[in-house]
Amino acid sequence: MQKMWQGRFNEASSELLEAFNASIEFDKELYIQDINGSKAHAKMLAKCNIIDDETAKKILNGLEQIKSEIENGEFKFSIADEDIHMAIEKRLSQIIGAEFGGKLHTARSRNDQVALDFRLFALGANMEIAKLILDLIKTLSQIAKEHKSTLMPGFTHLQHAQPVSLAYHLLAYAFMFSRDYDRLINSHKRNNLSPLGSCAMAGTPHPIDREMVARELGFSGITPNAMDSVSDRDFALELLFNISLIFTHTSRLCEELILWSSSEFGYITISDRFSTGSSIMPQKKNPDVAELIRGKTGRAYGNLISLLTTMKSLPLAYNKDMQEDKECLFDSVKSAKNSLIILNAMMAEIKFNKENMLKACKTGHLSATDLADYLVKQKQIPFRQAHFITGKCVALAESLGKDLSELNLEELQSIEPSIDSDALGLLKLESSKEARKSIGGTSDYSVNIQLELIDKFIKSNDIER
Amino acid sequence: MQKMWQGRFNEASSELLEAFNASIEFDKELYIQDINGSKAHAKMLAKCNIIDDETAKKILNGLEQIKSEIENGEFKFSIADEDIHMAIEKRLSQIIGAEFGGKLHTARSRNDQVALDFRLFALGANMEIAKLILDLIKTLSQIAKEHKSTLMPGFTHLQHAQPVSLAYHLLAYAFMFSRDYDRLINSHKRNNLSPLGSCAMAGTPHPIDREMVARELGFSGITPNAMDSVSDRDFALELLFNISLIFTHTSRLCEELILWSSSEFGYITISDRFSTGSSIMPQKKNPDVAELIRGKTGRAYGNLISLLTTMKSLPLAYNKDMQEDKECLFDSVKSAKNSLIILNAMMAEIKFNKENMLKACKTGHLSATDLADYLVKQKQIPFRQAHFITGKCVALAESLGKDLSELNLEELQSIEPSIDSDALGLLKLESSKEARKSIGGTSDYSVNIQLELIDKFIKSNDIER
Amino acid sequence: MQKMWQGRFNEASSELLEAFNASIEFDKELYIQDINGSKAHAKMLAKCNIIDDETAKKILNGLEQIKSEIENGEFKFSIADEDIHMAIEKRLSQIIGAEFGGKLHTARSRNDQVALDFRLFALGANMEIAKLILDLIKTLSQIAKEHKSTLMPGFTHLQHAQPVSLAYHLLAYAFMFSRDYDRLINSHKRNNLSPLGSCAMAGTPHPIDREMVARELGFSGITPNAMDSVSDRDFALELLFNISLIFTHTSRLCEELILWSSSEFGYITISDRFSTGSSIMPQKKNPDVAELIRGKTGRAYGNLISLLTTMKSLPLAYNKDMQEDKECLFDSVKSAKNSLIILNAMMAEIKFNKENMLKACKTGHLSATDLADYLVKQKQIPFRQAHFITGKCVALAESLGKDLSELNLEELQSIEPSIDSDALGLLKLESSKEARKSIGGTSDYSVNIQLELIDKFIKSNDIER
Amino acid sequence: MQKMWQGRFNEASSELLEAFNASIEFDKELYIQDINGSKAHAKMLAKCNIIDDETAKKILNGLEQIKSEIENGEFKFSIADEDIHMAIEKRLSQIIGAEFGGKLHTARSRNDQVALDFRLFALGANMEIAKLILDLIKTLSQIAKEHKSTLMPGFTHLQHAQPVSLAYHLLAYAFMFSRDYDRLINSHKRNNLSPLGSCAMAGTPHPIDREMVARELGFSGITPNAMDSVSDRDFALELLFNISLIFTHTSRLCEELILWSSSEFGYITISDRFSTGSSIMPQKKNPDVAELIRGKTGRAYGNLISLLTTMKSLPLAYNKDMQEDKECLFDSVKSAKNSLIILNAMMAEIKFNKENMLKACKTGHLSATDLADYLVKQKQIPFRQAHFITGKCVALAESLGKDLSELNLEELQSIEPSIDSDALGLLKLESSKEARKSIGGTSDYSVNIQLELIDKFIKSNDIER
Repeated sequence: MQKMWQGRFNEASSELLEAFNASIEFDKELYIQDINGSKAHAKMLAKCNIIDDETAKKILNGLEQIKSEIENGEFKFSIADEDIHMAIEKRLSQIIGAEFGGKLHTARSRNDQVALDFRLFALGANMEIAKLILDLIKTLSQIAKEHKSTLMPGFTHLQHAQPVSLAYHLLAYAFMFSRDYDRLINSHKRNNLSPLGSCAMAGTPHPIDREMVARELGFSGITPNAMDSVSDRDFALELLFNISLIFTHTSRLCEELILWSSSEFGYITISDRFSTGSSIMPQKKNPDVAELIRGKTGRAYGNLISLLTTMKSLPLAYNKDMQEDKECLFDSVKSAKNSLIILNAMMAEIKFNKENMLKACKTGHLSATDLADYLVKQKQIPFRQAHFITGKCVALAESLGKDLSELNLEELQSIEPSIDSDALGLLKLESSKEARKSIGGTSDYSVNIQLELIDKFIKSNDIER
Repeated sequence: MQKMWQGRFNEASSELLEAFNASIEFDKELYIQDINGSKAHAKMLAKCNIIDDETAKKILNGLEQIKSEIENGEFKFSIADEDIHMAIEKRLSQIIGAEFGGKLHTARSRNDQVALDFRLFALGANMEIAKLILDLIKTLSQIAKEHKSTLMPGFTHLQHAQPVSLAYHLLAYAFMFSRDYDRLINSHKRNNLSPLGSCAMAGTPHPIDREMVARELGFSGITPNAMDSVSDRDFALELLFNISLIFTHTSRLCEELILWSSSEFGYITISDRFSTGSSIMPQKKNPDVAELIRGKTGRAYGNLISLLTTMKSLPLAYNKDMQEDKECLFDSVKSAKNSLIILNAMMAEIKFNKENMLKACKTGHLSATDLADYLVKQKQIPFRQAHFITGKCVALAESLGKDLSELNLEELQSIEPSIDSDALGLLKLESSKEARKSIGGTSDYSVNIQLELIDKFIKSNDIER
Repeated sequence: MQKMWQGRFNEASSELLEAFNASIEFDKELYIQDINGSKAHAKMLAKCNIIDDETAKKILNGLEQIKSEIENGEFKFSIADEDIHMAIEKRLSQIIGAEFGGKLHTARSRNDQVALDFRLFALGANMEIAKLILDLIKTLSQIAKEHKSTLMPGFTHLQHAQPVSLAYHLLAYAFMFSRDYDRLINSHKRNNLSPLGSCAMAGTPHPIDREMVARELGFSGITPNAMDSVSDRDFALELLFNISLIFTHTSRLCEELILWSSSEFGYITISDRFSTGSSIMPQKKNPDVAELIRGKTGRAYGNLISLLTTMKSLPLAYNKDMQEDKECLFDSVKSAKNSLIILNAMMAEIKFNKENMLKACKTGHLSATDLADYLVKQKQIPFRQAHFITGKCVALAESLGKDLSELNLEELQSIEPSIDSDALGLLKLESSKEARKSIGGTSDYSVNIQLELIDKFIKSNDIER
Repeated sequence: MQKMWQGRFNEASSELLEAFNASIEFDKELYIQDINGSKAHAKMLAKCNIIDDETAKKILNGLEQIKSEIENGEFKFSIADEDIHMAIEKRLSQIIGAEFGGKLHTARSRNDQVALDFRLFALGANMEIAKLILDLIKTLSQIAKEHKSTLMPGFTHLQHAQPVSLAYHLLAYAFMFSRDYDRLINSHKRNNLSPLGSCAMAGTPHPIDREMVARELGFSGITPNAMDSVSDRDFALELLFNISLIFTHTSRLCEELILWSSSEFGYITISDRFSTGSSIMPQKKNPDVAELIRGKTGRAYGNLISLLTTMKSLPLAYNKDMQEDKECLFDSVKSAKNSLIILNAMMAEIKFNKENMLKACKTGHLSATDLADYLVKQKQIPFRQAHFITGKCVALAESLGKDLSELNLEELQSIEPSIDSDALGLLKLESSKEARKSIGGTSDYSVNIQLELIDKFIKSNDIER
C-alpha cells in the first residue's frame, strides 16, 4: 500500500524506516481522542459547507464503526500505517470509499491533529489524577479524624523532636496533596484550548470554524497562533512536572510507611492484603506497595527530563523529535493513577499501633522545648539562655539514663534553681501537645481548624466537578 | 564562641563539620529577607505582649543597624556562625545586649525562619522574572508590528513548508512566553502564604499572631499546617520548573537566531554590540549570547532535577538535606534574569535581512499546499487525491530544476488537466500567505487579531502590577 | 493458586496488589536468561550433590520444554505468577512434578536470581551495542576515505571558520564513537561477574560451587559479597550512562544531518528510502530518521535519571523499588540498537553535494587565519598583532562585498604594506586545508594518519570479538 | 581596553554582553592549569624554532611571575578580560611587552587552550577523588576487621531477614566503592591525552610537536582529531557520572547511618564532633553530616543532567554553549571531595551499639531460612514445601508472641512432625550466621576471604599511585 505522501518520492521506504518511524504501536492509545476529534472536525466542515452533509454523515458513521472495531479488537493495526491518524483515515476510506473518506483531511494536517489528540489525552488524564488526589485527601482526613488524640513523636532529622498527634502528621500530607490538586486544576485551565485548525503551522484558506470544534470537544476556547499550536508541548510538560511533584510527596509518605512498618519502629501494620512475602525467607512480610511507589518516583522524574530534553532547542514549528512526547507521558500518567489508587486503598487498611507510638514518645526528651518555653514565659529568661539551660538538663537526664520528663524537681533545680514544681506538669506529653495552640499547630484546637479547612477544600472541589 | 545549641554537647564540633555544615557562604544572599522577617516577628511579639515594647524597639533598631552594616560591607561573615540567621542574631545580641537580643528567637525556630526567608526570596524572584518575561513579550510584539509583510519560509522538520510573515513567526514566541508568565503568576498566588509561627514543626505555645506577620510581609495569608510548612519546598520546585520551561522556550528562539545568523541562512545580522570574535580566526563574528542562553538550558534542567532528587523520600518534617535547596534556586534565578535581560536587549537590535528571507521563500515549493487546496475547493477533488496530484507536480518541478511556483500552465496540466489559469495566481507567495485567514493563521487579518490579543495581555498585566 | 510465600499470611492479596506488584508483563523479556541461569544452577546443584542427577535431568528437560513453549507462543503468562522466575518455576513443577521442580530453588533466592538475569541481559546488550558502534565507525571510515578532497567549511559557533575536508569532519565522529566503544568494553569487563549463590543477601549454608555456575554462563568470575551483589545495579547505571553518551554523540551528528539537508545548506541529500513526506504539504521531504534519533536523546537521559533516582538512598540490601530497574534499561537498549542500525544504513546512502559545500567555502573569509599565520611566519609579526591586522582586512573585504580570498594585493597592502604577492596563494581554500599538517589536523597527511588509526582500531576490535 | 578580537568590529561590546559573556569569575579556578599549559606550549614553540629562546625565556619568567601574583592575591581579575586565558595573556604582555607576549598564542586557539585546561583539571580531580575513595575503603575495612563477630539483622525491604555480621554489611560498601575507584581509573586512562595543538578545530600550519607538550604535562599521548578534540567533553561527563554513582553509594550508606542513629534503631552513636543541635529544641542531636551528603546526591545528579543537556545536539566543533561545562563540574568535584573527607572522618569515630544490634536480631524470625534449609538438607523436603512449612511455624510464633527461635520442639513438631531436636541449635543466631559459608556469604570464613580481597585491592592501588 502506498504512503499518503508518496507523490513526490521516487523510491519506496526502507523497511527499517517503516519500523523506526511508525508510532502506531503506542499512539493507538489515542484512538478515542482521534475519532472524537475527527467527528467534531467533520461536523464543522459540513456546517461551514466545506463538505456536504451526506459526506459528513458517511464519515461520522464510518468513524463510529471504526471505534467499535477497535474496542472489539477487530481492528488491524499495522506498522505500514505509521500512526493512529493514518490508520483510522485509511480504514475510513475502505469503509465509505476514498471519494468520501479522502475529504476528512481537508483543512487539517497531522500536525494539528496529533496536537489535538495528545492534548485531549493530557487534559483528561489531568482531571482523572486530580480526582484520585482528592480521594486520597479524603482518606487522610478520615484517618486524621480518628487519631486526634493518638500521640506520636514529631521528627526532624529523623530524631524525636516534639510530641504531636497522628492526625496532625497526616494532615501535613493532606495539605501537600491539596497543592498538587490546585496545580493540576490550574494547568487544565491554562491549556484547555483547541489547536485544531492550525493545520501544518500556518492555518488554512478554508473557511473553517475553530470555535465550533472547540465547543464540540469540551474546550473552553482556541489557541491563538497556529505555529505555536503545533509546536507547543507545555501542557504535557506541566503534567509531567505535576506528576513528579505528586511522586515527591508520595515518596515521602511511603518512606514513612516503610520506616513505620519496620521492626524497629513498629508504628503500623500494613494489612496482609497489601503485603508480600519472600521466595526464600518464610517469615518475611514486606511493604512492597510503598516501596514500589517510592521507586516509581524515578520514572516520573525521568519522564520529565526526557521530554524537557527532547524539546530543547527545537526550531519552530513541528519537528519529528516531538513524536517522542507520548510514551513518557503515557507512562507517568499510568504510574500516577495506579499508585494513587493502591496507596489510597492501602492507607485505608493500615493498623496504627498506638501503644508503640506512645512508647516512642517517651524517649528523646520530647518536652525539652516546653521547658525552655516555660523558662521564657514564667521566668523571663531570654530564649537563647533558656535553650542553653534546658540543654544542660537534657545532658543531666542522659547521664542518669532517664528521659527529661522523668527528672524530679531537685534534679531540675540542680541546673536552674528558679524552676518551680509547676514545670513538672508542662513536661507531660499530652500537655506539650495541647500547649501548641498557634494556628497550624498540633493541639486539638489547631488540628480542628485544619480539619475544617480540608473538609471545605474537599467539599468545594467535589461540587466543582 | 559557643554554638547556640551547645548545651547538651560534650565535645566541640570538628572543624570539618563547621565548614561542611555552614551555609552562610550562600545563604547570606537572604540577609534582607531575614531582617525583614525578624522585624515583622519582633513587632508581632510586642503587639502580643510576648516581649515588651522597649525590647522590640531595641531589636528593630539593632536590625536596621545590621542591615546598614551588611550593605556597607562592614559585616563580618564567619563560618562559625553557621548561617545567616545565627549570624544576624549573634550580631544583634552584640549590639543591643544578649538580654534583649536573646528574646527575638521566642516562638520561632530556624526551621520556620529559613522557610520564611527562602519563600520570600522565591516569591520576589518569581515576580521579577515575570516582569522580564513581559518586557520580552513587548519587544516581540513591537518587532512583529514592523514585519507583518516580511515574508519568510515557515518550517517544519527544518524544511521549507509554507510562506509566513516574520510577525507571525515571532508571535508564536510571544504566546509561549505569555504562558510562562501565567504559570509564574499562578505559582505566586498558590504559595504566597507565610510559614512563620510554625516553629520547629508543631507550632508554639506562645500566643502569637501569625496573620499580623503575614500582613506585615505582604503575604496574602498563612500556611495551614506547621509540619507541612517547614518541610514544604513546592514553591521552589515550581519556580525551578517554570524557569526550566522558560529556558526550553528561549533555547528554541536562540537556536533559530543561531541558524538565522549563519552564513547559509543569512536571515539576520546580530549587532556588533552583542557579538564576539575569535582568539585565532580574525574574521569570526559569533552569536555568543544566543549560544550561552541555549547552553544555560542545561543548568536550569539540572537545578530542577537537583532539588527534586534531594526532596525525594525525605521523612517529615525538616531534614538537613533541605539546606541543599538554595544554591540551585539562586543559580536558576540568576541565569533566568540575566538571560532574559540580554535576550531582550539583543532582540531589539537585530537586523532582519528581508531580501534573504524572501529569496529563501522561492525554494522549497512553498505553495504546494495551496495547489492542493485549490484542487479541493475549485475542482472538488478529495484532499488525499489532491495531495497526490500536487506531489506529482512537485516532482516534475524538481526534475526541471524549477520551483513549483515557476511551472507554467501547460506543465501543470500535463499532470492534472483540470488545472486552470486561475491556479497560477494562488501559487504566488503573497497570495499563499494571505489566503490563510483562519483564526491563528498567518494572513494579515489573522495576525492583527493575534497582535490585539497580545497587546491586551500586556496591558492587563502591566496594570495589574 | 497460592503464592509461593503464602505460609505466614492470613489474608489473600488484594487484586490491586497483584496487578501493581507483578513485573511479569515486562520481565518476561528475561525468559532466556532465567532459563539459562536455572540450567546452570541445576547442573551445579547436582555436581555438588545437593540434588540427585535424576532430579537435575528432569529439571533440565523441563526447562528446555518451557523454553520451547515460550518461543512458540504457547506459554501462558499470568499476572498471578508475579514475575518470570515464579512463572517458569511453577510451570516446571507442573511438567515434572512439585517433588522435583520444588528443588530447583534450593540455595537460591529471587534476589540473586533477578540480579543474575538482569545482569546477563545488560552484559549481552552491552556487547550488541558495541558491535553496532563498530559498524557505524566502519561506515564513517568508509565514507571518509572517499571524501579526503571534498572541501567544506569547518564551523565554530555555526559560523564558517576554516576550510576542512569532509573526511576530516566525519572522522571526528569516528573517534567519538571509538570512546563509546571503549567505555562499553570496560564496563563489560568490570561487571562480568556472576551474582548467583548470593541468595537473599547473606549467602547459603548449602555447599554450592559459584565458580562453576559462573563458568557455565560465560562470566569471568563471581561477585565477592552477597549483600552488595543483590543490591548492586551499577552495571545497569553504567550502561544507561554509556547509552546516554552515545545519544549525545548521535544527537550532534543528526543535528548536522538535519542542518545539512535543509534548503539553506543543501550539503546533503538523504535518500528517499530514509525520508518521509507530509500529510498536508505535498512537496515535503523530511529527515525524520535524524530527527527521531535526536529526539530519543531525551529518553536516554530520562532513563538514566530514572534509575539513579530510584537507587538513591536505598538501605541495603534488596528493596522492591529496584523492580523499577528494568523497563528503563530495556527502553534505552532498544532505542540505542534501533537508532544505531538505521543511522548506519542511512549514512551509507547519503549523497554529499560537493559543489554546494565548495560554494559555501567561498563565503566567510575562511582563510583569515592563514593570512594571520603568514604575517607571523613570514613577517615576524606577533600573533596578536597579526590577528588584528587580518581583522582589518576582513572588515575591508566585508565593506567591498568580497570574500577575503578575493582581495587583490593592493587592497591587502592598504591595510598592511608588508604583505607580498606570495600571500595570495596561501589564501586559496585547498592551500589552507593542506597547510594544516599538524597531527590531528585537516591536511591529507594528517587525515591519512587518522584513517590508519581508525582502521587499526576496527581491526583489533573485530578480532577481539 | 580593546578586545583581542576587535579588528573587524565597528561597535564596542554592550556592557550587558561583557558581563554575560565573561567566564573569568569561575574559570580563574583554572589558572594553574592555564599557566602550566602555556609554559609547556612556549617551551615547545622554542624547541621547534617557532619562537626564539629569548622570547621563550621571557614568557616562562613572565608566567612564573603571574602565578606568584595570583597566589599572593595581587592579580587583578577583571570582567573585561573575558576569561582566565585572556587575563593571563594580557598581563604577560604588560610584564614582558606585547612584542614577546603576543607570540605565545602562535599555533594555539582558545578552543584548544580551554580544552587543555579543563581536561587537566578533570584528570587531576579524578585522581584526588580516587584517592579519597581508597581512604574510605581503608576505613571501612578497618572497622570491618573489628566487627566480624558483631551480630546485626540483615535487611531486605527494611525488614529483618537473616543475621549477619556488621563486618559483612560494611564490606558491601567497600566493594561498591572499589567499583567507583575502578571507574575513575579507567576514565583517567581513556582521557589522558593532550588536545593542545588542535587550535581552532583544524590543526595548524606551524611545525609544532604535540607529543612534546603532552609529555611535559604528564599526558600519556595526544588526541587524534582536532575537530573532535575541541568539541569533546566526554571526559567531564564521565567524571560527572562517576561522581553521581559515588553519591548514589554514599546516599545509601548515609541513609543507613541516619536510620541507625534514630531513637528507634539505636544501632550507632555519631560522635558529638560530627553532630549538631537545634535552635529551638535543646535536646536534639542531629546527624547533619549524613543528611547533607545524602542531600548532595541531588546536585551530583543535577550537574550530570546539566552538562548532558548542554551538549545535546551541538553541531561541530566548538560552540559557546560549552562554556557552561565548568561550574557544574567544579561543583560536583568540590561536593565529592568534601563529602568523602568528612564521611571518612565521621565513620572512624562512630560508636556501634552492639547490644542494641543484638537485641534487634531477636525479633523478626531471622532464622526462618535456616529452618527451611534444615528441612531440605536433613529431611529431603523440596525447598518450596520447606518454605511453606516454615511459614506456618512463623505464623505460630507470631500468634504466641514469640520469635521463631524461641519455639520449643513440641511447638515446631505441631506444624511438622519430622523436625528433630538438632533443629533447635540451627535456629541460634550465631549458628545461622556461621552456616553461610558460601563464597560471598556472612560466615567468618567467607568474610575473611572478602577482607583479604579488599586488602589486596588497597595494597595494589596504593602501590600503583
